[in-house]
Amino acid sequence: MKETGVNGMHVLILGAAGMIGRKLTERLVRDGALNGGAIERLTLTDVGAPARPTMSAGQAETAASDLSAPGEAEKAIAAKPDVIFHLAAIVSGEAELDFDKGYRINLDGTRFLLEAVRKAGDGYRPKLIFTSSAAVFGAPFPPAIPDDFHLTPLTSYGTQKAMGELLLADYTRRGFVDGVGLRFPTICVRPGAPNKAASGFFSGIIREPLAGHEAVLPVADNVRHTHASPRAAVGFLIHAAGLTREQLGPRINITMPGVSVTVGEQIASLKRIAGEKVAARIRREPDALVARIVSGWPERFDARRAAELGFRAETSFDEIVRIHIEDELQGKIAA
Amino acid sequence: MKETGVNGMHVLILGAAGMIGRKLTERLVRDGALNGGAIERLTLTDVGAPARPTMSAGQAETAASDLSAPGEAEKAIAAKPDVIFHLAAIVSGEAELDFDKGYRINLDGTRFLLEAVRKAGDGYRPKLIFTSSAAVFGAPFPPAIPDDFHLTPLTSYGTQKAMGELLLADYTRRGFVDGVGLRFPTICVRPGAPNKAASGFFSGIIREPLAGHEAVLPVADNVRHTHASPRAAVGFLIHAAGLTREQLGPRINITMPGVSVTVGEQIASLKRIAGEKVAARIRREPDALVARIVSGWPERFDARRAAELGFRAETSFDEIVRIHIEDELQGKIAA
Repeated sequence: MKETGVNGMHVLILGAAGMIGRKLTERLVRDGALNGGAIERLTLTDVGAPARPTMSAGQAETAASDLSAPGEAEKAIAAKPDVIFHLAAIVSGEAELDFDKGYRINLDGTRFLLEAVRKAGDGYRPKLIFTSSAAVFGAPFPPAIPDDFHLTPLTSYGTQKAMGELLLADYTRRGFVDGVGLRFPTICVRPGAPNKAASGFFSGIIREPLAGHEAVLPVADNVRHTHASPRAAVGFLIHAAGLTREQLGPRINITMPGVSVTVGEQIASLKRIAGEKVAARIRREPDALVARIVSGWPERFDARRAAELGFRAETSFDEIVRIHIEDELQGKIAA
Repeated sequence: MKETGVNGMHVLILGAAGMIGRKLTERLVRDGALNGGAIERLTLTDVGAPARPTMSAGQAETAASDLSAPGEAEKAIAAKPDVIFHLAAIVSGEAELDFDKGYRINLDGTRFLLEAVRKAGDGYRPKLIFTSSAAVFGAPFPPAIPDDFHLTPLTSYGTQKAMGELLLADYTRRGFVDGVGLRFPTICVRPGAPNKAASGFFSGIIREPLAGHEAVLPVADNVRHTHASPRAAVGFLIHAAGLTREQLGPRINITMPGVSVTVGEQIASLKRIAGEKVAARIRREPDALVARIVSGWPERFDARRAAELGFRAETSFDEIVRIHIEDELQGKIAA
């Protein structure tokens, strides 16, 4: 990352139209700065051009770009941004349904980006923050997954993310890029309409009742999972952009912290904050398939390195519920 | 793997001209069978066509093939071999010197092979045995590396092997291939001329004195490393070909066993077996660069899964020395 004195920073967000991309954009626009350096230029790309934000200082620009198409990665980094947030990916369910598309977008897209950076020349070595996922891990698990647990993903998505991590670490070791990979836990409460992802209910059982709608809970109350809010996820990305190579060392792919709770504890938080009537909007409707899928997911991480490096998630699920009410509902709960 | 009754098996070795490939070929030709099934056809490929062996029964054929060239993987598997040994790779030093070539041969070659198998159709699902490496691990290490230790390679070669493992596991999980990946320890005693690999001295200090030549030892006697003989390596490959999907489960990439000894213990073995005069042909000439490289390598593995699955290495370094004398020197030590 170049020193930002007279000239401010150029920040590129790849995959800026997704949920995290939009929230990261909002935060950067609001701050006008990243880790103390003014943002002079903010470039947002996605497969469809993202909405163009209004910046009080500095310039924002948007473009449609599919990293996995030939030449697109070169175009995306042609202006040599100082910091690249690489969030572009298709999600787990889609990567499982469409094998070719998953490898094309999630693996080839990442590799093309790294190759474009390597070949840019002129000593170009941007900070590159890559969103990985806890899906790089696969059951069976110890009670808490340590930082040095092996990568045995049980989905194509997890495989593609693990391969992206390995590439990023090798390109960083060789000095082509200054990379850091963040393994996100499940992001909760996810705003927006319910989706068909098997993990959707973790957010749905909080979001829908708070909005006055019924939510279906397909698994037992004792199912345990780890969550971080969208606000915490954006915080991870921004914190990562400020870490130096010396702080990171050679192991640049890091499991992020989160709040490990059972579904029962999620519901108890909802009750404490919004009351019995809201929590009563959760309808239990066991689904054996969803229960089986979820049983293969990590329950808890012992994310020591992340803590040492200063990454912070929420410390209780109550906090996660309150953040959703603040950030998405303007403080208002549907009675 | 198809049932082998009236029709025998078709075995393909990719990378058959390398040291392990040649020894595997010899063994299969001698046995005329693989895990109880007669070998009807043996196909050997490498970037240069391997020597064609004479089989007492069954047919042998050889071809020049570079898996990383378009269309070559499809050609290599066109006859739908039942068992594929994928040994084709460039070594660690070369992959580090030539970044593009390493990714092309070691990563793209493996991916093209998997893609060719996936697209072959007709329910084709061969047994595919992939040689990976302990280079998928990177220092710092615990005193013994457990089976669930994370993948943080510190070379491009190790990165490419780790990515190959991940691909193989995903293609296996999806039912496109019946894969197993074997993380080889250092193979010792490596026959042939001394090479410039940083690890070369581990073999050199045994092979050269036994042949009447001087050997240089660039590291201290207390350096610890894990070894298996070429004969054991061939045994790993053959044993892996006989493991079922049920035995392997989803974690198909397995650290192989070996003998963990210090350089001092290696030399003590040589003295016991060949005498003081032979061992005196080792000249200590410390090399700080080699010492530094070697200090980043694993010392010992706790290869429990391999043991449970029936993989067997030598149990002492004496045995490794004796195997070299038997297999390479016709039992004769240079006085």
